[in-house]
Amino acid sequence: MPMDNLLKEILHLNSVSGDESRISSYLIGQIGKRKRSWNVSPEIFFGQNFHDNIILVFGNPRTAAFAHMDTVGFTSRYENQLVPVGGPEILEGTWLQGRDQAGDIRCKLQEKDGNLFHDFPRGIQRGTLLSFEQDIKISDGYIQAAYLDNRLGMYALLKLCETLENGLIVFSTYEEHGGGSMPFLLRFIYENWGIRQALIADVTWVTDGVHLNEGAVISLRDSHIPRKRFLDRIIQKADESAVPYQLEVEAHGGSDGREIQLSPYPMDWCFIGIAEENPHTPAEKSAFFDLECMVKLYQYLMQNL
Amino acid sequence: MPMDNLLKEILHLNSVSGDESRISSYLIGQIGKRKRSWNVSPEIFFGQNFHDNIILVFGNPRTAAFAHMDTVGFTSRYENQLVPVGGPEILEGTWLQGRDQAGDIRCKLQEKDGNLFHDFPRGIQRGTLLSFEQDIKISDGYIQAAYLDNRLGMYALLKLCETLENGLIVFSTYEEHGGGSMPFLLRFIYENWGIRQALIADVTWVTDGVHLNEGAVISLRDSHIPRKRFLDRIIQKADESAVPYQLEVEAHGGSDGREIQLSPYPMDWCFIGIAEENPHTPAEKSAFFDLECMVKLYQYLMQNL
Amino acid sequence: MPMDNLLKEILHLNSVSGDESRISSYLIGQIGKRKRSWNVSPEIFFGQNFHDNIILVFGNPRTAAFAHMDTVGFTSRYENQLVPVGGPEILEGTWLQGRDQAGDIRCKLQEKDGNLFHDFPRGIQRGTLLSFEQDIKISDGYIQAAYLDNRLGMYALLKLCETLENGLIVFSTYEEHGGGSMPFLLRFIYENWGIRQALIADVTWVTDGVHLNEGAVISLRDSHIPRKRFLDRIIQKADESAVPYQLEVEAHGGSDGREIQLSPYPMDWCFIGIAEENPHTPAEKSAFFDLECMVKLYQYLMQNL
Repeated sequence: MPMDNLLKEILHLNSVSGDESRISSYLIGQIGKRKRSWNVSPEIFFGQNFHDNIILVFGNPRTAAFAHMDTVGFTSRYENQLVPVGGPEILEGTWLQGRDQAGDIRCKLQEKDGNLFHDFPRGIQRGTLLSFEQDIKISDGYIQAAYLDNRLGMYALLKLCETLENGLIVFSTYEEHGGGSMPFLLRFIYENWGIRQALIADVTWVTDGVHLNEGAVISLRDSHIPRKRFLDRIIQKADESAVPYQLEVEAHGGSDGREIQLSPYPMDWCFIGIAEENPHTPAEKSAFFDLECMVKLYQYLMQNL
Repeated sequence: MPMDNLLKEILHLNSVSGDESRISSYLIGQIGKRKRSWNVSPEIFFGQNFHDNIILVFGNPRTAAFAHMDTVGFTSRYENQLVPVGGPEILEGTWLQGRDQAGDIRCKLQEKDGNLFHDFPRGIQRGTLLSFEQDIKISDGYIQAAYLDNRLGMYALLKLCETLENGLIVFSTYEEHGGGSMPFLLRFIYENWGIRQALIADVTWVTDGVHLNEGAVISLRDSHIPRKRFLDRIIQKADESAVPYQLEVEAHGGSDGREIQLSPYPMDWCFIGIAEENPHTPAEKSAFFDLECMVKLYQYLMQNL
Repeated sequence: MPMDNLLKEILHLNSVSGDESRISSYLIGQIGKRKRSWNVSPEIFFGQNFHDNIILVFGNPRTAAFAHMDTVGFTSRYENQLVPVGGPEILEGTWLQGRDQAGDIRCKLQEKDGNLFHDFPRGIQRGTLLSFEQDIKISDGYIQAAYLDNRLGMYALLKLCETLENGLIVFSTYEEHGGGSMPFLLRFIYENWGIRQALIADVTWVTDGVHLNEGAVISLRDSHIPRKRFLDRIIQKADESAVPYQLEVEAHGGSDGREIQLSPYPMDWCFIGIAEENPHTPAEKSAFFDLECMVKLYQYLMQNL
């Protein structure tokens, strides 16, 4: 699975949490073009009533797969200060970019006494969103770039769309900062299709037990714990699929799964994603082999779960 | 906008989170008296089924405005200990007052080794709620008192009622401590009127970028981040209104907006309030000019958003 | 109220949060056997659609009583590491037990530099749940054992079932770790029976103001604060009942009441439970007298609230 134009293009779109309208519009355009070549043409829900979220319904869905579209970043405050959106790694000298009413912005991140600043020569309008400058590097089966979290999850689900017969795909907002679009999305998909199984297509960290090039990651827990009965079924199906995968066990961290756990619907959930190094930096790094495994595992599970 | 009796009276009512029944009853009484002189007579929802919250529906509402009625305070524990309700500033020697079955209580707050105590000569019944003794000072365009947070928000919305044609006004409980009335209120107003726009009328802090006498405060973010598309519309309308305002950007803090963000409804929200010094003390201080701006901005936005 | 077989049997079942299927099945079996001798035969809801939760509906319910079935424990990670589930006390050398596909596990808990490990000779499968080895000691009116939190609450509600005429009993999951079954349960009981009053049957800590052998515990607050009007009614009814009780006031801690507070239903709640020493250890200790008081208080309140 080499780099393709779709992945490249979505890696160049900014979408700091709260400001996902551009990537959402781009995605709707792509879906419109691509769906003619998909095995099944989905019903599409989006627009003002959906607050930049996108829902695709294929056939008779039993399981929903979620990928968030937003990224970490910064909000400009007063006196050249910046405030984090989500949890970006704070690396002195990181290039940031964005745009306010006075024009394009390119500046460096600076930290003094625990406070964050930019070095842009002019003031930046209050509330302007900045994010990492993109710099994609491909080599030897690896991709290194900003925003792999969660462009890789979005990309995997778009690949899944090509062959999906029955299933529900959701591109969501606000995952990196406070959440809040999931409750609405869950209500919509539960009330309309009675969805009771959910998979979270997102990026996780390389650790002692999770490594690059060792397959998709099935998370048995993070700060929240999925129901054991559902995990057992997923592992059984993953074994049947013969797709390489790794099992993750973490004490901390979270995903959109948290909001499914807390929802007023009896919906099981599990995180199935891809590992990366250097999370929430401009140089997140993942392996194409793992991305391929992730796509194949989703193809199998959406069909067989 | 000088001090009037309404503001004075609500500043003298105690309503520590969880115990809002007195201020709610008072407010219902005032609304009953005043509504005859309002341009539009609202439909009123309150009582046991609403858990001390009050909802006023004017005409065909598109936007809801929320003001919380509760304040910070203290719960009496064992052995003269006190436990905070919300986040009151702990200032040794602050006068507190309340009432238990044995009668009226007036005592001083004391801190020893990080624990809080009262100095009342007799024991205080477990679970009794105490709050700051009121002391209102008016001078030179400023008001200094306990409970400005959020008596000023309540007052601004009551002023708004006088001319409001279409809109929904909510006086809510529990904002200072844990929340939990908003989810019910949001369900009620979404299911009955399809409300999708919400403004939070509350008090915020003076900081590097927000000052007394510089107008109403529109918050672009606190610990939660409103949707950029909605913020952009609000700023455009605020500019049209010609009412003086300031833009706030904070990393921390929150408001009832948090529970709107997390609700299962596609409802946009924004905090529009007033700045104060000495938050959560008995000497909160605000400017009447800012209060006037806040009322005018609400008048314009409820009509034009 | 001496130890009986029911209490003994449920004390020997493992049910770490997320893995409540065994205790849920056992309970359903017991309910099936016992209900013939109950005054009223309840409607029973359970199974896959209820995610291991159990709901019993007696007559025309006005009030619901909740007891959680799960316990704290540990998840096995990589390289002999363990990750806590809920907040177990970390006591070096505590015996833990569980089971993975390779067979039964019995091992000791170890702590090094803030990380947790087991000393089992072989590796343990990732994601395996371990919990305290059970060791029940009865003496002089006291019981000491693992899992009193919340086997005592479950036991009290099962006793309550024997005479209950009108009321709703819920055995819930996930209380110790992150919650998330309550929102679904609350929606179900509110939409079907309009339940607006809830009591939480759970275990709390011995403190300065709460002691063994001094009766049931009515909590006036923990990290969340029930509505004062509801507390006042409960205390009035508890006084009428003449059952010994103690009033608790805490700054921290929580129960399933938190999720009722945050639910979108106007449902009042109060924690009414039993005190214990050594919480979240293998040697939790409570008094049978208090358990008896708890049962009697529930009998009175479910009838009269």
